[in-house]
Amino acid sequence: MAQQINLDLFVNPLSIALIGASSHTGPGALNVLEQMLSTGYKGRIYPVNPRGGTILDMLVYRSLMEIEEQVDLAVVATPRTEVPTVIRQCVSKGIRAVVIITQGFSDANDEDGPRLHQEIMDAIAGTPTRVVGPNTLGLINNFINFNTSFIEFDTKPAPVGLICQSGIFINAADDFSAGIGIGIDIGNTADIGFTECLEYLAEHQQIKVINIHMEGLRNGREFLEAARRITRHKPILVLKTGSSEEGARAASSHSGSMAGEDSVFSAAFTQSGIIRVDSPNHLAGLNQTLATYREMRGKRIGVITISGGAGIIAVDAAGKYGLEIARFSPDTMEALNSMYPDWMHPGNPADIWPAGMARGYRGVINSALDKILSDEAIDAVLCVTTAYLDPDCDPHNVVGVINEVAARYPQKPTAIWTIGPYRIKYAAQYAKAGSVVAYGSPDEAMYCLAQLFHYQSSVKNANCSAYLAPENIDHKLVRSTLESSLNAGLPTLNEEALDIIEAYGIPVVRRSLAKSPEEAARQAEMLGYPVVMKIASPDVPHKSDLGGIKLNISSPDDAVAAYNEIMENVLARLSNARINGVLVQCQVSGGTEVILGGKRDPQFGPVLLYGLGGIFTELMGDVSFRVAPITSAEALEMIRETRSYKILSGARGREPGDIEGLADCLVRLGTLLHDHPEIAEVDINPLLVTAKGCLTVDALIVL
Amino acid sequence: MAQQINLDLFVNPLSIALIGASSHTGPGALNVLEQMLSTGYKGRIYPVNPRGGTILDMLVYRSLMEIEEQVDLAVVATPRTEVPTVIRQCVSKGIRAVVIITQGFSDANDEDGPRLHQEIMDAIAGTPTRVVGPNTLGLINNFINFNTSFIEFDTKPAPVGLICQSGIFINAADDFSAGIGIGIDIGNTADIGFTECLEYLAEHQQIKVINIHMEGLRNGREFLEAARRITRHKPILVLKTGSSEEGARAASSHSGSMAGEDSVFSAAFTQSGIIRVDSPNHLAGLNQTLATYREMRGKRIGVITISGGAGIIAVDAAGKYGLEIARFSPDTMEALNSMYPDWMHPGNPADIWPAGMARGYRGVINSALDKILSDEAIDAVLCVTTAYLDPDCDPHNVVGVINEVAARYPQKPTAIWTIGPYRIKYAAQYAKAGSVVAYGSPDEAMYCLAQLFHYQSSVKNANCSAYLAPENIDHKLVRSTLESSLNAGLPTLNEEALDIIEAYGIPVVRRSLAKSPEEAARQAEMLGYPVVMKIASPDVPHKSDLGGIKLNISSPDDAVAAYNEIMENVLARLSNARINGVLVQCQVSGGTEVILGGKRDPQFGPVLLYGLGGIFTELMGDVSFRVAPITSAEALEMIRETRSYKILSGARGREPGDIEGLADCLVRLGTLLHDHPEIAEVDINPLLVTAKGCLTVDALIVL
Repeated sequence: MAQQINLDLFVNPLSIALIGASSHTGPGALNVLEQMLSTGYKGRIYPVNPRGGTILDMLVYRSLMEIEEQVDLAVVATPRTEVPTVIRQCVSKGIRAVVIITQGFSDANDEDGPRLHQEIMDAIAGTPTRVVGPNTLGLINNFINFNTSFIEFDTKPAPVGLICQSGIFINAADDFSAGIGIGIDIGNTADIGFTECLEYLAEHQQIKVINIHMEGLRNGREFLEAARRITRHKPILVLKTGSSEEGARAASSHSGSMAGEDSVFSAAFTQSGIIRVDSPNHLAGLNQTLATYREMRGKRIGVITISGGAGIIAVDAAGKYGLEIARFSPDTMEALNSMYPDWMHPGNPADIWPAGMARGYRGVINSALDKILSDEAIDAVLCVTTAYLDPDCDPHNVVGVINEVAARYPQKPTAIWTIGPYRIKYAAQYAKAGSVVAYGSPDEAMYCLAQLFHYQSSVKNANCSAYLAPENIDHKLVRSTLESSLNAGLPTLNEEALDIIEAYGIPVVRRSLAKSPEEAARQAEMLGYPVVMKIASPDVPHKSDLGGIKLNISSPDDAVAAYNEIMENVLARLSNARINGVLVQCQVSGGTEVILGGKRDPQFGPVLLYGLGGIFTELMGDVSFRVAPITSAEALEMIRETRSYKILSGARGREPGDIEGLADCLVRLGTLLHDHPEIAEVDINPLLVTAKGCLTVDALIVL
Repeated sequence: MAQQINLDLFVNPLSIALIGASSHTGPGALNVLEQMLSTGYKGRIYPVNPRGGTILDMLVYRSLMEIEEQVDLAVVATPRTEVPTVIRQCVSKGIRAVVIITQGFSDANDEDGPRLHQEIMDAIAGTPTRVVGPNTLGLINNFINFNTSFIEFDTKPAPVGLICQSGIFINAADDFSAGIGIGIDIGNTADIGFTECLEYLAEHQQIKVINIHMEGLRNGREFLEAARRITRHKPILVLKTGSSEEGARAASSHSGSMAGEDSVFSAAFTQSGIIRVDSPNHLAGLNQTLATYREMRGKRIGVITISGGAGIIAVDAAGKYGLEIARFSPDTMEALNSMYPDWMHPGNPADIWPAGMARGYRGVINSALDKILSDEAIDAVLCVTTAYLDPDCDPHNVVGVINEVAARYPQKPTAIWTIGPYRIKYAAQYAKAGSVVAYGSPDEAMYCLAQLFHYQSSVKNANCSAYLAPENIDHKLVRSTLESSLNAGLPTLNEEALDIIEAYGIPVVRRSLAKSPEEAARQAEMLGYPVVMKIASPDVPHKSDLGGIKLNISSPDDAVAAYNEIMENVLARLSNARINGVLVQCQVSGGTEVILGGKRDPQFGPVLLYGLGGIFTELMGDVSFRVAPITSAEALEMIRETRSYKILSGARGREPGDIEGLADCLVRLGTLLHDHPEIAEVDINPLLVTAKGCLTVDALIVL
């Protein structure tokens, strides 16, 4: 990483040099200067163009070097071949903040692109000059009416901070993110990347929610650690694109960043408290939700509706996102009953339309909402209201009534689902008062409330314990085993893998290496029958294919015969194999087979994998991931988030497995990966889980 | 069902009596007469109210009987206690179409509700008078500016026909369904239900798409048959609510209809070509899609985008809905290449922004779209365009360009994803020309295209073969077996179930009933070892719990011993059990265990179930359903739509199972259920599937 920087020079510049200022003006001209002036930026602007003269009545400098005053920010929009020269000028003039809008660097398909990219990097190396871009729309700070967009767009301020790799998130912010405060398009991330921007937005007082559009990531670990700290006090939403295979391919051609394995990204986001969204259209609702509601203490939803049918739709949506439909307290039921017509019994959803027709809609919604919000059995309310008519002339407009009641219960969200063609105009009216959010669909309402509850309960107020390295690890044994394998040039460890895993405190089946048939028989006797015997050789990767494994050995004679047979089988096919002997191990049965794995991810480093063994899980992709090392709590999450958790937890009369013990194995495997970067891959397959504990039956380590 | 009716009297009435006309007028008055007049209905209206006088300058009749002219439609909005009297007057005046808006009948929680409901039913029984409602907003026919809503709302015509059980779908149609042509709120469905309305809308020339909001259904089978015919020429979209458990409870309290098992509804909809949506907010996009695009011949999508980042998001969305990103032909690649800057190679998505900046956006989008639409490797195009500015003054407005090119390729959909705060206004501009649909999100665009392709390929142009009863069924044996079980008062069949299933042509393991130990030994010898022996008794439901099953019998001595042991075990615990002997059957192994089941659904009658055997499927709910009888094609769909299909189809080197044979078993089981309504439940568990065929190992029939 280059030197530390205060991003304020980019976000709050007092003066800007605009290099490559275009003289083409008017609608559709894509002129940054024109946009900047029309937006109302109040700092000084110095247009630069070798042709000189004036543009839009402003004096144009022929070169950056002609500007005598200090410049906070340089915005570069020249042809790409001129960019390195301009950057060198920026450096020599002591400009510390540079935005390169120009495309065609690491995003280009030709040879010049990467070369020009390198020239830029060389120019700023060791200097205080820092770069946003290239291939960017640049920055927006709506609090000071400043942006570097060359495209005309409408925008409104909101307490949202954005980091993106595509300008559309700035231009379309009014739609995607319900407005924007500060936005940084980091483009190709030649220099400044996600983590620095994240740290900046985390500290910014006017920003309540951070949005990230991510195509790829470098230094994933650093990002993860920063996010883990920040999400405790400020929510982060990430749209990670390139989730499909074809999307990933498109991503790598677009901004040159590695797309990475999608499920590892998901796991890393979960671990750091980031909320991942899968469509840009989820951002607006979540931003408003997280910026508006202070708390949500539970999942019990009360529904007030003007339509029984809409009530059912809302209940379906609540179920879809894991929320619960509350049971009203007797007190609430009585209050509703006194408003309802005689033929109608109250319940949740509270269909208040018949009561409203008889007693007046406004009064009924006022009383019902107040009563339900004060009910201790309720954590949040969804009000279904109409948007059939323009709110400015709708006799059934209840925006004022609802806002007034909702404001009295700041610890419980009052959410609105406005039904009808005027829902957007209605939503704006609801938003004005600042105490409720009006959603365009029941799905969006329930999705956002569920995410709010998740953030409040599992991120903001989560009882997170820090990672602690587990005890009782024989580091000396592990180091010497790994060293001797490396020295011997044997990258694949099998019997030694069992030793290493055992040294890390993960239980391994009892076993012993025999060098002769007689020794095998003695060891089998000691271990207790039945036993399994396997060839011990660094040169036989697929033991069973070569007849290198014998099961169900239940007598000394069997053991002797098996030893000889294994040797014959292996040597018949691989006469030059280096053979250490035959591994004799207890043959265990019963319990549930699971797989524990580890590998290195290009973005995040050591990653753990967990899944149920067998063909079903393999085919159904029912596995979970975490970036290592992990805590016990994270290990338990890994186990519980698989669908197969039911099987381990004792469904349908099965004996429940030792989940705590299994979690401990995962924590210890994570520590192994973390401690030893020389391990590329590790597989414990299978680990048997019974009520009494876990037992590794076979394992593999690749260096 | 009551007499046949022409719903035209409801939908196109020339004259209307409005009974219970309110004298309260003005904004928020909820006055049907006032709404009707303001909407611009051109027929005659006769307001009726016992108080007489005038309302809104119209003469009010004191009673329906005072009206001398013929009345096409009566709209009843009196208090509920007066409704039966009014209906009797309608019948005596010969009014054949009645809408009852009043609530509080089968939807009420008191005793009077159901009684009043019955009085209405008695009044119309055997007469030509038919009822829509009660508990309804009534009807809308936007083609003649007619509706019976008492709530004020804005509405615009569209080629959409709607049947709903909640008035919000009429009032919010501009939002939910992108406008409406004809809508019928069938409310409590006391008389007229889904099927009659469906038949009507199917024949209506101005209706291109049918929308259904369904809380519950009666006569599911009749609905299914009608839908199956209609979907071949007109698409039907259904929002079936009450899908969650709590939603189902709310549904039954709302309109009194049975909610039913959700997965059976899904299966029935699939079978009849209905597209099920899970949110009201999916209807608008699908309606426009199905009404606008004539064809979609494949799944290969071309993407044209103004932003690389947006292109990736579009690709992700395509993958989510099973669409493919096309490979452009060399010709298209060359054409794009000639427009692109030197440093950029073309691909799909085609990011045309750099080309557009250099050569003019309008011209580039025109050429690129034309080239890509003419490419034979492309079935549909998504154009990502900006909506950053008001389309009326946006210099980058390309609505005209795109519409003009798209109109030249009517066999290939050109879909638009408009990004930005003006997307709704832009969408309206795109819609005007009628050849493209602009969606608000990439998800919606790809979801709608995927459903369009599904409708075109699997519903409209599907090569549907009709159900044909399979041959080689021993009906006589089945009838006599069922009869004797019924006569003997034995509702649970086990050994006989195997005989019945075999008689229907489903292979069953070889077996024989032994009445003595010696006979058992002889039969075992004949069948070939090993065999399984099981108690044959109608009084022992859980055979293994009582020691009534013995496995791995491999000699005559074993067989004799097993016979005696089974008898002792069973008689020791159930001394009075009626015992037919011991069933000796071949012990088979290998293959994959699957479950075939059948039951009676309250809405749809006989329903088949299919799933993989074992704890995994049971816990993961990986089963499929179909309403019986089914065709081979439907049976194959049932098998293929489970996640476990991979296991049967030979994944990871497994031997593939006899899928055709399995499908035949499902067809035959469906026929059994269809032929014999006296069968309440049937279970084949397990059926073993190997490469060579299928074999029933155990089965159960409940009468």
